[in-house]
Amino acid sequence: MLTLSLIGIGCGDPEQLTRAAIQAINEADLVLIPRKGTAKSDLADLRRTICAEVLASDKAVIAEFDLPVRDGGEADYRKGVDDWHDAVAATWSQTIARHRQGDGKVALLIWGDPSLYDSSLRIARRLDPLPNIEVVPGITSIQALCAAHALPLNDIGEPFLVTTGRRLRDGGWPQGVDTVVVMLDGGTAFQSLDPAGLHIWWGAYLGMPDQIIMSGVLAEVGPRIVASRQEARERHGWIMDSYILKRRR
Amino acid sequence: MLTLSLIGIGCGDPEQLTRAAIQAINEADLVLIPRKGTAKSDLADLRRTICAEVLASDKAVIAEFDLPVRDGGEADYRKGVDDWHDAVAATWSQTIARHRQGDGKVALLIWGDPSLYDSSLRIARRLDPLPNIEVVPGITSIQALCAAHALPLNDIGEPFLVTTGRRLRDGGWPQGVDTVVVMLDGGTAFQSLDPAGLHIWWGAYLGMPDQIIMSGVLAEVGPRIVASRQEARERHGWIMDSYILKRRR
Ligand SMILES: C[S@@+](CC[C@H](N)C(=O)[O-])C[C@H]1O[C@@H](n2cnc3c(N)ncnc32)[C@H](O)[C@@H]1O
Ligand SMILES: C[S@@+](CC[C@H](N)C(=O)[O-])C[C@H]1O[C@@H](n2cnc3c(N)ncnc32)[C@H](O)[C@@H]1O
Repeated sequence: MLTLSLIGIGCGDPEQLTRAAIQAINEADLVLIPRKGTAKSDLADLRRTICAEVLASDKAVIAEFDLPVRDGGEADYRKGVDDWHDAVAATWSQTIARHRQGDGKVALLIWGDPSLYDSSLRIARRLDPLPNIEVVPGITSIQALCAAHALPLNDIGEPFLVTTGRRLRDGGWPQGVDTVVVMLDGGTAFQSLDPAGLHIWWGAYLGMPDQIIMSGVLAEVGPRIVASRQEARERHGWIMDSYILKRRR
Repeated sequence: MLTLSLIGIGCGDPEQLTRAAIQAINEADLVLIPRKGTAKSDLADLRRTICAEVLASDKAVIAEFDLPVRDGGEADYRKGVDDWHDAVAATWSQTIARHRQGDGKVALLIWGDPSLYDSSLRIARRLDPLPNIEVVPGITSIQALCAAHALPLNDIGEPFLVTTGRRLRDGGWPQGVDTVVVMLDGGTAFQSLDPAGLHIWWGAYLGMPDQIIMSGVLAEVGPRIVASRQEARERHGWIMDSYILKRRR
Protein backbone atom coordinates (compact mmCIF):
# COMPACT_ATOMS: atom_id res chain seq x y z
CA MET A 1 0.00 0.00 0.00
CA LEU A 2 1.17 3.49 -0.87
CA THR A 3 1.14 6.22 1.79
CA LEU A 4 0.94 9.84 0.70
CA SER A 5 2.09 12.35 3.34
CA LEU A 6 1.00 15.94 2.87
CA ILE A 7 3.57 17.80 4.90
CA GLY A 8 3.07 21.42 5.91
CA ILE A 9 6.44 23.20 5.71
CA GLY A 10 5.47 26.69 6.90
CA CYS A 11 5.21 29.64 4.59
CA GLY A 12 8.74 30.71 3.77
CA ASP A 13 11.02 30.31 6.77
CA PRO A 14 12.66 26.86 7.04
CA GLU A 15 12.86 27.47 10.80
CA GLN A 16 9.06 27.04 10.85
CA LEU A 17 9.46 23.32 10.10
CA THR A 18 8.17 21.12 12.90
CA ARG A 19 9.93 18.07 14.26
CA ALA A 20 7.08 15.95 12.84
CA ALA A 21 7.59 17.46 9.37
CA ILE A 22 11.33 16.79 9.46
CA GLN A 23 10.68 13.21 10.50
CA ALA A 24 8.02 12.68 7.84
CA ILE A 25 10.34 14.02 5.12
CA ASN A 26 13.04 11.65 6.31
CA GLU A 27 10.70 8.67 6.25
CA ALA A 28 9.79 9.28 2.61
CA ASP A 29 10.98 7.06 -0.24
CA LEU A 30 9.96 9.70 -2.76
CA VAL A 31 9.58 13.46 -2.35
CA LEU A 32 7.49 15.28 -4.96
CA ILE A 33 8.36 18.90 -5.72
CA PRO A 34 5.99 20.79 -8.01
CA ARG A 35 7.41 23.50 -10.26
CA LYS A 36 4.97 26.38 -10.71
CA GLY A 37 6.53 28.24 -13.63
CA THR A 38 9.39 30.69 -13.56
CA ALA A 39 7.84 33.62 -11.66
CA LYS A 40 7.51 31.72 -8.43
CA SER A 41 10.62 29.58 -8.86
CA ASP A 42 11.83 30.96 -5.52
CA LEU A 43 9.17 28.76 -3.95
CA ALA A 44 10.34 25.53 -5.63
CA ASP A 45 13.82 26.61 -4.53
CA LEU A 46 12.68 26.81 -0.94
CA ARG A 47 11.32 23.28 -1.12
CA ARG A 48 14.65 22.12 -2.56
CA THR A 49 16.58 23.92 0.17
CA ILE A 50 14.41 22.34 2.84
CA CYS A 51 14.97 18.86 1.43
CA ALA A 52 18.71 19.38 1.20
CA GLU A 53 18.83 20.73 4.74
CA VAL A 54 16.70 18.20 6.59
CA LEU A 55 17.28 14.94 4.72
CA ALA A 56 19.60 12.92 6.93
CA SER A 57 20.24 10.19 4.33
CA ASP A 58 20.10 9.54 0.58
CA LYS A 59 17.16 7.18 0.93
CA ALA A 60 14.58 9.47 -0.69
CA VAL A 61 14.34 10.10 -4.42
CA ILE A 62 13.47 13.71 -5.14
CA ALA A 63 11.21 14.12 -8.16
CA GLU A 64 10.35 17.50 -9.60
CA PHE A 65 7.42 17.84 -11.95
CA ASP A 66 5.63 20.63 -13.79
CA LEU A 67 2.20 21.47 -12.48
CA PRO A 68 -0.40 21.56 -15.27
CA VAL A 69 -1.72 25.08 -15.88
CA ARG A 70 -5.33 25.86 -15.02
CA ASP A 71 -7.55 26.76 -17.97
CA GLY A 72 -8.45 30.35 -17.11
CA GLY A 73 -10.67 30.45 -20.19
CA GLU A 74 -13.21 27.99 -18.78
CA ALA A 75 -16.37 30.04 -18.17
CA ASP A 76 -17.62 27.75 -15.39
CA TYR A 77 -15.22 28.42 -12.46
CA ARG A 78 -16.11 25.20 -10.60
CA LYS A 79 -15.63 23.12 -13.72
CA GLY A 80 -12.28 24.82 -14.42
CA VAL A 81 -11.06 23.93 -10.92
CA ASP A 82 -12.44 20.42 -11.19
CA ASP A 83 -10.69 19.71 -14.49
CA TRP A 84 -7.49 21.18 -13.13
CA HIS A 85 -7.60 18.96 -10.03
CA ASP A 86 -8.04 15.94 -12.31
CA ALA A 87 -5.04 17.03 -14.36
CA VAL A 88 -2.89 17.53 -11.24
CA ALA A 89 -3.93 14.13 -9.87
CA ALA A 90 -2.90 12.54 -13.19
CA THR A 91 0.51 14.25 -12.99
CA TRP A 92 1.04 13.01 -9.44
CA SER A 93 0.05 9.47 -10.44
CA GLN A 94 2.47 9.45 -13.37
CA THR A 95 5.34 10.85 -11.32
CA ILE A 96 4.71 8.35 -8.53
CA ALA A 97 4.35 5.42 -10.98
CA ARG A 98 7.73 6.32 -12.47
CA HIS A 99 9.40 5.66 -9.09
CA ARG A 100 7.24 3.32 -7.00
CA GLN A 101 5.44 0.02 -7.57
CA GLY A 102 2.33 0.82 -5.55
CA ASP A 103 4.01 0.83 -2.16
CA GLY A 104 6.27 2.99 0.00
CA LYS A 105 5.97 6.47 1.35
CA VAL A 106 5.54 9.53 -0.87
CA ALA A 107 5.91 13.02 0.58
CA LEU A 108 4.44 16.21 -0.82
CA LEU A 109 5.74 19.41 0.72
CA ILE A 110 2.84 21.83 1.18
CA TRP A 111 3.17 25.57 1.57
CA GLY A 112 1.94 26.60 5.04
CA ASP A 113 -0.61 24.11 6.33
CA PRO A 114 -2.29 21.52 4.08
CA SER A 115 -5.76 22.42 5.41
CA LEU A 116 -5.70 26.15 4.57
CA TYR A 117 -6.59 27.33 1.04
CA ASP A 118 -4.79 24.40 -0.49
CA SER A 119 -6.32 21.71 -2.66
CA SER A 120 -3.76 18.93 -2.24
CA LEU A 121 -6.09 16.96 0.03
CA ARG A 122 -8.88 17.18 -2.53
CA ILE A 123 -6.51 16.14 -5.30
CA ALA A 124 -5.12 13.26 -3.23
CA ARG A 125 -8.65 11.87 -2.87
CA ARG A 126 -8.84 11.60 -6.67
CA LEU A 127 -5.85 9.28 -6.92
CA ASP A 128 -6.65 5.80 -8.18
CA PRO A 129 -5.84 3.54 -6.40
CA LEU A 130 -6.49 5.69 -3.35
CA PRO A 131 -3.37 5.85 -1.15
CA ASN A 132 -3.34 5.99 2.60
CA ILE A 133 -3.35 9.77 3.27
CA GLU A 134 -1.47 11.39 6.18
CA VAL A 135 -1.37 15.09 7.08
CA VAL A 136 1.40 16.84 9.01
CA PRO A 137 0.33 20.34 10.07
CA GLY A 138 2.53 23.35 9.29
CA ILE A 139 2.70 27.02 10.31
CA THR A 140 0.25 29.06 8.21
CA SER A 141 0.71 32.52 6.75
CA ILE A 142 -1.94 33.74 9.22
CA GLN A 143 0.26 32.74 12.15
CA ALA A 144 3.38 34.17 10.51
CA LEU A 145 1.49 37.43 10.00
CA CYS A 146 0.33 37.62 13.62
CA ALA A 147 3.79 36.71 14.92
CA ALA A 148 5.51 39.34 12.77
CA HIS A 149 3.16 42.00 14.18
CA ALA A 150 3.00 40.49 17.71
CA LEU A 151 -0.76 40.72 17.19
CA PRO A 152 -3.45 38.69 19.00
CA LEU A 153 -5.68 37.51 16.14
CA ASN A 154 -9.05 37.49 17.91
CA ASP A 155 -10.36 39.95 20.46
CA ILE A 156 -11.22 38.35 23.82
CA GLY A 157 -14.02 35.81 23.36
CA GLU A 158 -14.76 37.23 19.88
CA PRO A 159 -14.95 35.44 16.52
CA PHE A 160 -12.95 36.14 13.38
CA LEU A 161 -13.50 35.42 9.71
CA VAL A 162 -10.93 34.18 7.22
CA THR A 163 -11.79 35.05 3.64
CA THR A 164 -10.39 35.87 0.20
CA GLY A 165 -9.65 39.17 -1.52
CA ARG A 166 -12.33 38.47 -4.10
CA ARG A 167 -15.03 37.94 -1.46
CA LEU A 168 -14.06 41.09 0.41
CA ARG A 169 -14.18 43.13 -2.79
CA ASP A 170 -17.51 41.66 -3.93
CA GLY A 171 -19.25 41.39 -0.58
CA GLY A 172 -17.94 44.31 1.51
CA TRP A 173 -17.34 44.05 5.25
CA PRO A 174 -18.68 40.67 6.43
CA GLN A 175 -21.54 40.57 8.90
CA GLY A 176 -21.13 39.70 12.55
CA VAL A 177 -17.36 40.09 12.91
CA ASP A 178 -14.89 42.84 13.77
CA THR A 179 -11.77 40.89 12.71
CA VAL A 180 -11.21 39.67 9.15
CA VAL A 181 -8.18 37.83 7.76
CA VAL A 182 -7.75 38.24 4.00
CA MET A 183 -5.78 35.77 1.88
CA LEU A 184 -5.51 35.09 -1.84
CA ASP A 185 -5.92 38.74 -2.70
CA GLY A 186 -4.58 39.28 -6.21
CA GLY A 187 -4.81 43.03 -5.63
CA THR A 188 -5.63 45.28 -2.71
CA ALA A 189 -9.29 44.54 -2.03
CA PHE A 190 -9.16 46.59 1.19
CA GLN A 191 -9.36 49.67 -1.05
CA SER A 192 -12.98 48.80 -1.81
CA LEU A 193 -13.97 49.36 1.86
CA ASP A 194 -14.93 52.56 3.64
CA PRO A 195 -11.80 52.87 5.82
CA ALA A 196 -13.55 54.67 8.71
CA GLY A 197 -12.79 52.85 11.96
CA LEU A 198 -10.62 50.18 10.28
CA HIS A 199 -7.07 49.16 11.19
CA ILE A 200 -4.85 46.96 9.05
CA TRP A 201 -1.90 44.63 9.71
CA TRP A 202 -0.34 43.67 6.38
CA GLY A 203 2.58 41.40 5.49
CA ALA A 204 4.27 40.22 2.30
CA TYR A 205 6.92 37.50 1.82
CA LEU A 206 6.34 36.57 5.47
CA GLY A 207 9.16 34.52 6.95
CA MET A 208 11.38 35.20 3.93
CA PRO A 209 14.45 37.41 3.78
CA ASP A 210 12.42 40.13 2.03
CA GLN A 211 9.56 40.15 4.53
CA ILE A 212 7.72 43.50 4.61
CA ILE A 213 5.16 44.40 7.26
CA MET A 214 3.10 47.55 7.70
CA SER A 215 0.24 48.38 10.06
CA GLY A 216 -1.91 51.24 11.26
CA VAL A 217 -5.10 53.13 10.61
CA LEU A 218 -6.33 51.94 7.18
CA ALA A 219 -7.08 55.44 5.89
CA GLU A 220 -3.46 56.45 6.51
CA VAL A 221 -1.45 53.32 5.88
CA GLY A 222 -3.63 51.83 3.10
CA PRO A 223 -2.22 54.02 0.31
CA ARG A 224 1.33 53.35 1.51
CA ILE A 225 0.68 49.60 1.40
CA VAL A 226 -0.65 49.91 -2.15
CA ALA A 227 2.56 51.67 -3.21
CA SER A 228 4.92 49.28 -1.37
CA ARG A 229 3.08 46.28 -2.72
CA GLN A 230 3.36 47.44 -6.30
CA GLU A 231 7.01 48.32 -5.97
CA ALA A 232 7.86 44.97 -4.31
CA ARG A 233 5.85 43.03 -6.85
CA GLU A 234 7.71 44.63 -9.74
CA ARG A 235 11.06 44.02 -8.11
CA HIS A 236 10.40 40.29 -7.39
CA GLY A 237 8.17 39.46 -10.33
CA TRP A 238 5.62 38.01 -7.87
CA ILE A 239 4.16 38.72 -4.45
CA MET A 240 2.42 36.76 -1.71
CA ASP A 241 0.71 38.85 0.91
CA SER A 242 -2.05 38.63 3.49
CA TYR A 243 -3.60 41.03 5.95
CA ILE A 244 -5.83 41.37 8.97
CA LEU A 245 -8.46 44.09 9.27
CA LYS A 246 -10.03 45.07 12.57
CA ARG A 247 -12.98 47.37 13.10
CA ARG A 248 -12.75 49.50 16.23
CA ARG A 249 -15.95 51.05 17.54
CA MET B 1 16.79 45.39 28.12
CA LEU B 2 14.62 42.35 28.80
CA THR B 3 13.24 40.29 25.91
CA LEU B 4 10.10 38.25 26.44
CA SER B 5 9.59 35.44 23.91
CA LEU B 6 6.11 34.02 23.61
CA ILE B 7 6.78 30.62 22.12
CA GLY B 8 4.01 28.53 20.57
CA ILE B 9 4.61 24.87 21.43
CA GLY B 10 1.72 23.23 19.59
CA CYS B 11 -1.29 21.81 21.35
CA GLY B 12 -0.21 18.56 22.95
CA ASP B 13 2.26 16.71 20.74
CA PRO B 14 5.92 17.66 21.36
CA GLU B 15 6.58 16.65 17.72
CA GLN B 16 4.65 19.80 16.73
CA LEU B 17 7.51 21.97 18.02
CA THR B 18 9.13 23.99 15.28
CA ARG B 19 12.86 24.46 14.85
CA ALA B 20 12.39 28.15 15.70
CA ALA B 21 10.62 27.24 18.96
CA ILE B 22 13.38 24.83 19.96
CA GLN B 23 15.98 27.48 19.24
CA ALA B 24 14.08 30.18 21.14
CA ILE B 25 13.73 27.91 24.18
CA ASN B 26 17.45 27.22 24.07
CA GLU B 27 18.30 30.92 23.88
CA ALA B 28 16.32 31.69 27.03
CA ASP B 29 17.95 32.57 30.35
CA LEU B 30 14.68 31.97 32.16
CA VAL B 31 11.72 29.78 31.19
CA LEU B 32 8.40 30.53 32.91
CA ILE B 33 5.98 27.65 33.41
CA PRO B 34 2.54 28.51 34.75
CA ARG B 35 0.74 25.99 36.94
CA LYS B 36 -3.02 26.04 36.38
CA GLY B 37 -4.24 24.03 39.37
CA THR B 38 -4.38 20.28 39.74
CA ALA B 39 -7.03 19.34 37.15
CA LYS B 40 -4.91 20.40 34.20
CA SER B 41 -1.56 19.47 35.71
CA ASP B 42 -1.01 17.26 32.65
CA LEU B 43 -0.51 20.49 30.71
CA ALA B 44 2.20 21.87 33.02
CA ASP B 45 3.74 18.40 32.77
CA LEU B 46 3.86 18.68 29.00
CA ARG B 47 5.68 22.01 29.26
CA ARG B 48 8.16 20.41 31.68
CA THR B 49 8.66 17.45 29.34
CA ILE B 50 9.28 19.77 26.42
CA CYS B 51 11.87 21.75 28.34
CA ALA B 52 13.64 18.63 29.50
CA GLU B 53 13.64 17.22 25.99
CA VAL B 54 14.76 20.22 23.97
CA LEU B 55 17.08 22.12 26.32
CA ALA B 56 20.58 21.38 25.09
CA SER B 57 22.35 22.98 28.08
CA ASP B 58 21.75 23.98 31.71
CA LYS B 59 21.86 27.67 30.88
CA ALA B 60 18.16 28.36 31.45
CA VAL B 61 16.55 28.61 34.87
CA ILE B 62 13.11 27.03 34.86
CA ALA B 63 10.66 28.86 37.10
CA GLU B 64 7.21 27.52 37.81
CA PHE B 65 4.59 29.83 39.25
CA ASP B 66 0.93 29.63 40.20
CA LEU B 67 -1.43 31.53 37.95
CA PRO B 68 -3.79 33.79 39.90
CA VAL B 69 -7.40 32.62 39.73
CA ARG B 70 -9.93 34.75 37.87
CA ASP B 71 -12.70 36.24 39.99
CA GLY B 72 -15.73 34.49 38.49
CA GLY B 73 -17.96 36.53 40.85
CA GLU B 74 -17.22 39.84 39.11
CA ALA B 75 -20.50 40.85 37.43
CA ASP B 76 -18.78 42.90 34.72
CA TYR B 77 -17.10 40.29 32.46
CA ARG B 78 -14.70 42.78 30.82
CA LYS B 79 -13.63 44.14 34.19
CA GLY B 80 -13.13 40.60 35.52
CA VAL B 81 -10.80 39.79 32.61
CA ASP B 82 -9.03 43.13 32.93
CA ASP B 83 -8.32 42.67 36.65
CA TRP B 84 -7.16 39.13 36.02
CA HIS B 85 -4.73 40.22 33.30
CA ASP B 86 -3.30 42.79 35.72
CA ALA B 87 -2.89 40.09 38.34
CA VAL B 88 -1.16 37.73 35.88
CA ALA B 89 1.16 40.52 34.70
CA ALA B 90 2.09 41.18 38.35
CA THR B 91 2.89 37.49 38.86
CA TRP B 92 5.08 37.43 35.76
CA SER B 93 6.90 40.57 36.90
CA GLN B 94 7.58 39.12 40.35
CA THR B 95 8.78 35.80 38.98
CA ILE B 96 11.04 37.52 36.46
CA ALA B 97 12.40 39.97 39.07
CA ARG B 98 13.34 37.04 41.29
CA HIS B 99 15.73 35.78 38.58
CA ARG B 100 16.76 38.64 36.30
CA GLN B 101 18.03 42.19 36.80
CA GLY B 102 16.08 43.79 33.94
CA ASP B 103 17.99 42.08 31.16
CA GLY B 104 18.28 38.72 29.40
CA LYS B 105 15.82 36.53 27.59
CA VAL B 106 12.67 35.17 29.21
CA ALA B 107 10.63 32.47 27.47
CA LEU B 108 6.98 31.71 28.02
CA LEU B 109 5.74 28.47 26.49
CA ILE B 110 2.30 29.06 24.98
CA TRP B 111 -0.24 26.35 24.20
CA GLY B 112 -0.81 26.18 20.43
CA ASP B 113 -0.11 29.54 18.83
CA PRO B 114 0.25 32.76 20.87
CA SER B 115 -2.16 34.65 18.57
CA LEU B 116 -5.15 32.32 18.91
CA TYR B 117 -7.51 32.67 21.89
CA ASP B 118 -4.64 33.39 24.21
CA SER B 119 -4.09 36.55 26.22
CA SER B 120 -0.37 36.34 26.85
CA LEU B 121 0.34 39.08 24.31
CA ARG B 122 -2.18 41.38 25.99
CA ILE B 123 -0.70 40.59 29.39
CA ALA B 124 2.85 41.12 28.14
CA ARG B 125 1.89 44.65 27.06
CA ARG B 126 0.97 45.46 30.67
CA LEU B 127 4.44 44.71 32.01
CA ASP B 128 6.25 47.70 33.44
CA PRO B 129 8.93 48.32 32.23
CA LEU B 130 7.71 47.04 28.87
CA PRO B 131 10.03 44.30 27.58
CA ASN B 132 10.96 43.72 23.98
CA ILE B 133 8.27 41.22 22.84
CA GLU B 134 8.93 38.40 20.36
CA VAL B 135 6.45 35.83 19.06
CA VAL B 136 7.30 32.36 17.74
CA PRO B 137 4.29 30.79 15.99
CA GLY B 138 3.11 27.29 16.93
CA ILE B 139 0.72 24.68 15.54
CA THR B 140 -2.84 25.48 16.64
CA SER B 141 -5.57 23.10 17.72
CA ILE B 142 -7.43 24.00 14.50
CA GLN B 143 -4.58 22.61 12.43
CA ALA B 144 -4.23 19.54 14.64
CA LEU B 145 -7.97 18.95 14.22
CA CYS B 146 -7.83 19.24 10.41
CA ALA B 147 -4.73 17.05 10.22
CA ALA B 148 -6.27 14.34 12.40
CA HIS B 149 -9.31 14.21 10.10
CA ALA B 150 -7.32 14.87 6.87
CA LEU B 151 -9.90 17.63 6.33
CA PRO B 152 -9.48 20.75 4.15
CA LEU B 153 -10.68 23.55 6.44
CA ASN B 154 -12.21 25.88 3.85
CA ASP B 155 -14.19 24.97 0.75
CA ILE B 156 -12.59 26.24 -2.48
CA GLY B 157 -12.48 30.04 -2.46
CA GLU B 158 -14.90 30.12 0.50
CA PRO B 159 -14.55 31.85 3.87
CA PHE B 160 -14.72 30.27 7.32
CA LEU B 161 -15.49 31.62 10.76
CA VAL B 162 -13.67 30.77 13.98
CA THR B 163 -15.78 31.32 17.07
CA THR B 164 -16.47 30.17 20.62
CA GLY B 165 -18.98 27.70 22.05
CA ARG B 166 -20.73 30.50 23.91
CA ARG B 167 -21.27 32.57 20.73
CA LEU B 168 -22.56 29.57 18.80
CA ARG B 169 -25.02 28.76 21.58
CA ASP B 170 -26.20 32.34 21.97
CA GLY B 171 -26.16 33.42 18.32
CA GLY B 172 -27.04 30.30 16.31
CA TRP B 173 -25.48 29.53 12.93
CA PRO B 174 -23.42 32.57 11.88
CA GLN B 175 -24.38 34.51 8.77
CA GLY B 176 -22.53 34.29 5.49
CA VAL B 177 -20.47 31.13 6.10
CA ASP B 178 -20.85 27.38 5.59
CA THR B 179 -17.79 26.42 7.67
CA VAL B 180 -17.47 27.22 11.38
CA VAL B 181 -14.64 26.28 13.74
CA VAL B 182 -15.69 26.16 17.39
CA MET B 183 -13.21 26.52 20.24
CA LEU B 184 -13.50 27.23 23.96
CA ASP B 185 -16.74 25.31 24.22
CA GLY B 186 -17.28 24.40 27.87
CA GLY B 187 -20.11 22.10 26.78
CA THR B 188 -21.53 20.90 23.50
CA ALA B 189 -22.96 24.04 21.95
CA PHE B 190 -23.60 22.23 18.66
CA GLN B 191 -26.64 20.69 20.36
CA SER B 192 -28.34 24.10 20.25
CA LEU B 193 -28.39 24.01 16.40
CA ASP B 194 -30.91 22.46 14.05
CA PRO B 195 -28.69 19.63 12.76
CA ALA B 196 -30.33 19.43 9.30
CA GLY B 197 -27.64 19.62 6.63
CA LEU B 198 -24.78 19.89 9.14
CA HIS B 199 -21.65 17.75 9.34
CA ILE B 200 -19.21 17.75 12.26
CA TRP B 201 -15.51 16.94 12.69
CA TRP B 202 -14.73 16.77 16.42
CA GLY B 203 -11.51 16.14 18.33
CA ALA B 204 -10.46 16.02 21.97
CA TYR B 205 -6.94 15.83 23.47
CA LEU B 206 -5.61 16.39 19.95
CA GLY B 207 -1.99 15.39 19.54
CA MET B 208 -1.98 13.66 22.93
CA PRO B 209 -1.86 9.93 23.62
CA ASP B 210 -5.58 9.95 24.41
CA GLN B 211 -6.66 11.78 21.25
CA ILE B 212 -10.27 11.02 20.28
CA ILE B 213 -11.78 12.03 16.95
CA MET B 214 -15.27 11.53 15.59
CA SER B 215 -16.97 12.85 12.47
CA GLY B 216 -20.11 12.51 10.40
CA VAL B 217 -23.62 13.78 9.93
CA LEU B 218 -24.36 15.91 13.01
CA ALA B 219 -27.80 14.40 13.62
CA GLU B 220 -26.24 10.93 13.86
CA VAL B 221 -22.85 11.49 15.39
CA GLY B 222 -23.74 14.45 17.65
CA PRO B 223 -25.30 12.33 20.42
CA ARG B 224 -22.35 9.94 20.31
CA ILE B 225 -19.93 12.84 20.71
CA VAL B 226 -21.90 14.10 23.71
CA ALA B 227 -21.60 10.68 25.36
CA SER B 228 -17.89 10.19 24.53
CA ARG B 229 -17.07 13.67 25.69
CA GLN B 230 -18.74 13.18 29.05
CA GLU B 231 -17.14 9.80 29.59
CA ALA B 232 -13.65 11.10 28.64
CA ARG B 233 -14.06 14.18 30.79
CA GLU B 234 -14.93 12.12 33.83
CA ARG B 235 -12.05 9.77 33.26
CA HIS B 236 -9.43 12.57 32.85
CA GLY B 237 -10.90 15.17 35.18
CA TRP B 238 -10.68 17.70 32.31
CA ILE B 239 -11.18 17.92 28.57
CA MET B 240 -10.00 20.15 25.73
CA ASP B 241 -11.91 19.77 22.52
CA SER B 242 -12.72 21.67 19.34
CA TYR B 243 -14.80 20.99 16.28
CA ILE B 244 -15.60 22.08 12.76
CA LEU B 245 -19.14 22.29 11.44
CA LYS B 246 -19.95 22.43 7.73
CA ARG B 247 -23.31 23.14 6.17
CA ARG B 248 -23.96 21.20 2.97
CA ARG B 249 -26.71 22.48 0.73
C1 LIG C 1 -2.95 29.10 -1.92
S1 LIG C 1 -2.89 29.95 -0.39
C2 LIG C 1 -1.94 28.85 0.58
C3 LIG C 1 -1.97 29.13 2.05
C4 LIG C 1 -1.08 28.21 2.85
N1 LIG C 1 -1.54 26.81 2.78
C5 LIG C 1 -0.98 28.64 4.31
O1 LIG C 1 -1.15 27.79 5.19
O2 LIG C 1 -0.69 29.80 4.56
C6 LIG C 1 -1.81 31.27 -0.76
C7 LIG C 1 -2.09 32.53 0.03
O3 LIG C 1 -1.52 32.41 1.31
C8 LIG C 1 -0.96 33.64 1.73
N2 LIG C 1 0.50 33.45 1.94
C9 LIG C 1 1.18 32.30 1.80
N3 LIG C 1 2.46 32.47 2.10
C10 LIG C 1 2.62 33.76 2.43
C11 LIG C 1 3.73 34.54 2.83
N4 LIG C 1 4.94 33.99 2.98
N5 LIG C 1 3.53 35.86 3.10
C12 LIG C 1 2.31 36.40 2.98
N6 LIG C 1 1.23 35.71 2.60
C13 LIG C 1 1.37 34.39 2.32
C14 LIG C 1 -1.28 34.66 0.66
O4 LIG C 1 -2.48 35.30 1.02
C15 LIG C 1 -1.48 33.79 -0.56
O5 LIG C 1 -2.34 34.39 -1.50
C1 LIG D 1 -7.50 29.14 25.45
S1 LIG D 1 -7.67 28.38 23.89
C2 LIG D 1 -6.01 28.24 23.37
C3 LIG D 1 -5.87 27.89 21.92
C4 LIG D 1 -4.41 27.72 21.50
N1 LIG D 1 -3.66 28.97 21.62
C5 LIG D 1 -4.30 27.17 20.09
O1 LIG D 1 -3.50 27.73 19.30
O2 LIG D 1 -4.96 26.16 19.79
C6 LIG D 1 -8.13 26.74 24.38
C7 LIG D 1 -9.05 26.03 23.38
O3 LIG D 1 -8.26 25.51 22.33
C8 LIG D 1 -8.76 24.26 21.91
N2 LIG D 1 -7.69 23.26 22.14
C9 LIG D 1 -6.44 23.51 22.58
N3 LIG D 1 -5.72 22.39 22.63
C10 LIG D 1 -6.52 21.40 22.19
C11 LIG D 1 -6.33 20.01 21.99
N4 LIG D 1 -5.16 19.42 22.26
N5 LIG D 1 -7.38 19.29 21.54
C12 LIG D 1 -8.56 19.87 21.24
N6 LIG D 1 -8.78 21.18 21.41
C13 LIG D 1 -7.78 21.94 21.88
C14 LIG D 1 -10.00 23.99 22.73
O4 LIG D 1 -11.12 24.44 21.98
C15 LIG D 1 -9.78 24.85 23.95
O5 LIG D 1 -11.01 25.23 24.54
